[in-house]
Amino acid sequence: MTGGFDPKPRLQDIADRAGVSLATVSKVLNGRTDVAARTRGRVEALLQASGYASRPRVVESQMIELVFHELDSEWTIEIIRGAQEAAAARGLSLILTRSGDRHTPDPQWIEGVLRRRPLGVVLVFSDIRGADKEKLRSRGVNFVVVDPAGEPDPDVVSIGATNWSGGYAAAQHLISLGHRRIAVIGGPEDMLCSVARIDGYRSALERARIGFDPSLVRYADFHVDGARRAARELLTLPDRPTAIFAGSDLQGFGVYEAARTLGIAVPKDLSVVGFDDLRPASWANPPLTTIRQPIAEMAATAVRLIADAGIVPTVAPRVDLATSLIVRESTAPLTTVEA
Amino acid sequence: MTGGFDPKPRLQDIADRAGVSLATVSKVLNGRTDVAARTRGRVEALLQASGYASRPRVVESQMIELVFHELDSEWTIEIIRGAQEAAAARGLSLILTRSGDRHTPDPQWIEGVLRRRPLGVVLVFSDIRGADKEKLRSRGVNFVVVDPAGEPDPDVVSIGATNWSGGYAAAQHLISLGHRRIAVIGGPEDMLCSVARIDGYRSALERARIGFDPSLVRYADFHVDGARRAARELLTLPDRPTAIFAGSDLQGFGVYEAARTLGIAVPKDLSVVGFDDLRPASWANPPLTTIRQPIAEMAATAVRLIADAGIVPTVAPRVDLATSLIVRESTAPLTTVEA
Repeated sequence: MTGGFDPKPRLQDIADRAGVSLATVSKVLNGRTDVAARTRGRVEALLQASGYASRPRVVESQMIELVFHELDSEWTIEIIRGAQEAAAARGLSLILTRSGDRHTPDPQWIEGVLRRRPLGVVLVFSDIRGADKEKLRSRGVNFVVVDPAGEPDPDVVSIGATNWSGGYAAAQHLISLGHRRIAVIGGPEDMLCSVARIDGYRSALERARIGFDPSLVRYADFHVDGARRAARELLTLPDRPTAIFAGSDLQGFGVYEAARTLGIAVPKDLSVVGFDDLRPASWANPPLTTIRQPIAEMAATAVRLIADAGIVPTVAPRVDLATSLIVRESTAPLTTVEA
Repeated sequence: MTGGFDPKPRLQDIADRAGVSLATVSKVLNGRTDVAARTRGRVEALLQASGYASRPRVVESQMIELVFHELDSEWTIEIIRGAQEAAAARGLSLILTRSGDRHTPDPQWIEGVLRRRPLGVVLVFSDIRGADKEKLRSRGVNFVVVDPAGEPDPDVVSIGATNWSGGYAAAQHLISLGHRRIAVIGGPEDMLCSVARIDGYRSALERARIGFDPSLVRYADFHVDGARRAARELLTLPDRPTAIFAGSDLQGFGVYEAARTLGIAVPKDLSVVGFDDLRPASWANPPLTTIRQPIAEMAATAVRLIADAGIVPTVAPRVDLATSLIVRESTAPLTTVEA
């Protein structure tokens, strides 16, 4: 018990000189938060002078890990903003990880999480495999899925939005403006949120006794290009629609682009409704009428569930936050009579 | 040295049962990465069965911390994307922290960093105070500033873009299309990147022997609303400009909005050039001609400097990555003759 390898005498020495307990010195050394700032400063100065600053660094796990499959849209920044604010309010750090593909995190991702041992994981827009669920649970790492791609397993907590109601409200708004030939461009056909939005649209049409016309339904990914192609098809139909409900704001911009290149004016000749209410929707030309999803709030809710609940219940609630119609300048009453 | 508080006997026991060394068990327990996956799985199962999963969690510091003052734009997501990719390529985690205001991180931020002890800090769009620099340096935490607001101290490494050249290229493009009354809406007057862009614009005008007209220069923040007001002022001048160079894409959208409400068509009656080349620039209606900043690459460069250099040199290079002109549909040859 002698020699240069036992740091205890020096730590005790530092504790004595700082006028604090050995436990406090240890806390400071390990980056714990429950030490007063002034005390910590005093102890740190002494630790540094004694060469402790170069010890292997360890931190307690006070992290929430946010896992994405893509880091490239306004949608993503809203998620990050909501998660970051909720995490910071609880003194938690936010770790950002990108995982392989849309539906399932890749195997490396789960290894990384198990190494980092965050307090919990928020999975965005993806599902989680049974084996990965067990790995996380066995280590006490909670997880919540935000806007799941498919129907989550009954033991997975997920946060979404009222997609069906949003689709209903979008179509209802267009119907109230006199439109009858209302097309829809949904997101991918295999995503539940997309199916729910189209079902809401369909129900609104049926309630207004407008026949559902399958030739006015298109599917595309949630980005600009696919929707532009779909809109071009719709707008060159012999009996073209006077309104298009797009499954995302980006799809709405694709519709704008198709209309512009065909010389069709929005909203005079074509009304457009988007979905999401990302910031570019209000910058668009004309500003886009859309269905607002509380995206930041969805992410914040996920973080709060993990941070506040301790253990997230496995008899899982599906939390759906409310959507709302935001009327801007891309929708107008039907004025032209169809040929 | 007896009793329930010494975990060694049990760890040795686990090592024996797993057929590995005590050091390997310790590595697994501490989340180290240099253990084969199968071995780790076996040891973890034994550790868990012995109740070790609930030990205080510690991780090694393998983090890069990205510090923002705002988390609300496409600009930010580009930074995050670049930093995340560069960090992930090096096996580093990315921590996201939001700090108080535009110019200086708030005091709580520095306390958080010192507690988390990342490998390094990337400060976005802000400056760092002398006292904070010393705190970071004394703990061996490197830092790099991306797109500094002011002129960084000579001992701070910063990554920017060739703002002067970008301003020059924007004005040169408009001049080559025949425009002579070219207005500029800069970012905040106290930001160096903004001043450099306007200087580049001014030099291009002078080289083309076009008089510099101070009445065609406006300053606004980098967002939509201020630019819309500035553009409205410019476009209601008796001798209004036929082209506007905006200091950011968002400002460009503000110009679009002002033009739309005044019944001025882009690009027929007004050419518009933005700056940044954020994704919404290509979605805009019409798609926005702009000066591309390699924003993701700027952030990736900052992360690589920290991760690869070990210690970032304090005789600091200022790294400026190249900008480039992206011609889309918001600029057109001058066709109308001014009154």
